[in-house]
Amino acid sequence: MFKGVDHIVVAVKDLDASVANYETLYGTPVSDRAEAPAAGMKMAFFRFPDSYVELVSNIDDTGPIAKRLADRGEGVHLVAMKVDDLEAAVADLRGKGVRLVGDPGPGQPIKGQVFVHPSVTGGVLTQLVQR
Amino acid sequence: MFKGVDHIVVAVKDLDASVANYETLYGTPVSDRAEAPAAGMKMAFFRFPDSYVELVSNIDDTGPIAKRLADRGEGVHLVAMKVDDLEAAVADLRGKGVRLVGDPGPGQPIKGQVFVHPSVTGGVLTQLVQR
Repeated sequence: MFKGVDHIVVAVKDLDASVANYETLYGTPVSDRAEAPAAGMKMAFFRFPDSYVELVSNIDDTGPIAKRLADRGEGVHLVAMKVDDLEAAVADLRGKGVRLVGDPGPGQPIKGQVFVHPSVTGGVLTQLVQR
Repeated sequence: MFKGVDHIVVAVKDLDASVANYETLYGTPVSDRAEAPAAGMKMAFFRFPDSYVELVSNIDDTGPIAKRLADRGEGVHLVAMKVDDLEAAVADLRGKGVRLVGDPGPGQPIKGQVFVHPSVTGGVLTQLVQR
C-alpha cells in the first residue's frame, strides 16, 4: 500500500534565499513555483524522477507555515508518502484507529489533503499522496 | 547529479513503540534492524522500492541521537539525497563553497558519511549517498 517517500516539505524563512542555496546545492534551477494565498504560503519545487523537495515560506502572518516558523523555526515541515490508493489507505488506517488529520469519515469523498498525526510517527507530520 | 530522496531518518525516544506504530501505519513488518554502539544508536528500517524510512533511537547518553532527542525531541533527524557519484558531488560542492560536514578535503578518499550543513538547507541536515 505504501510505496515510499513522495516528497518532503521544508519550511524556510526567506524563500528566495533558500531557493538560491538549493540551486547551488543541487546544481539545477528550481523546477517551478506556486502560491497558495488562502493558506498564507508560497512554494518552490525541485523535482526528481521519483520524488521532490518543496520549499515553503509564509506570505503573511496567517496560516500553518507562519505559525510553524514562529514556533519551531526552519526545518522539515512534513514528509509525504506515496500510497497506491488514497481512499483505500484512509479507510484502512481509520479502521486500524490510526489518528488522521483531514479524514472526511466513512463513506465521504476525500476533498483535501490527508495526514497522519505526528503523535503516531515520532513527531513527523506525514501526508498521504496518490500518484 | 542529485537524483532524489534516498531516505529519511526519524529520531524517536522509544524505538520499539515507534516501530509498532509504523508497522501499523505502513501495514508491513519492519524490514530490518541494526545497532551502531560506537555511535550510541540503534535503528530500524522500512524499505520501499526507491527510498526508505529509518527510525533511530539512542542506546545510551552518548552520540548524536541522544543529544538531538534531549535538545529538540523527536522528528526528522536528516534527509539523505541520492547522488550518482559521491566523490564528484563532494568535489563539486567543495568547489562551490557549500558548507559540508565530513568532507575529507581535496585528493583524500571519503571514509565516512558526508552531509550538507543545515545552515545551507533551511535547517535540514542533508546526507549525500551514492547507490
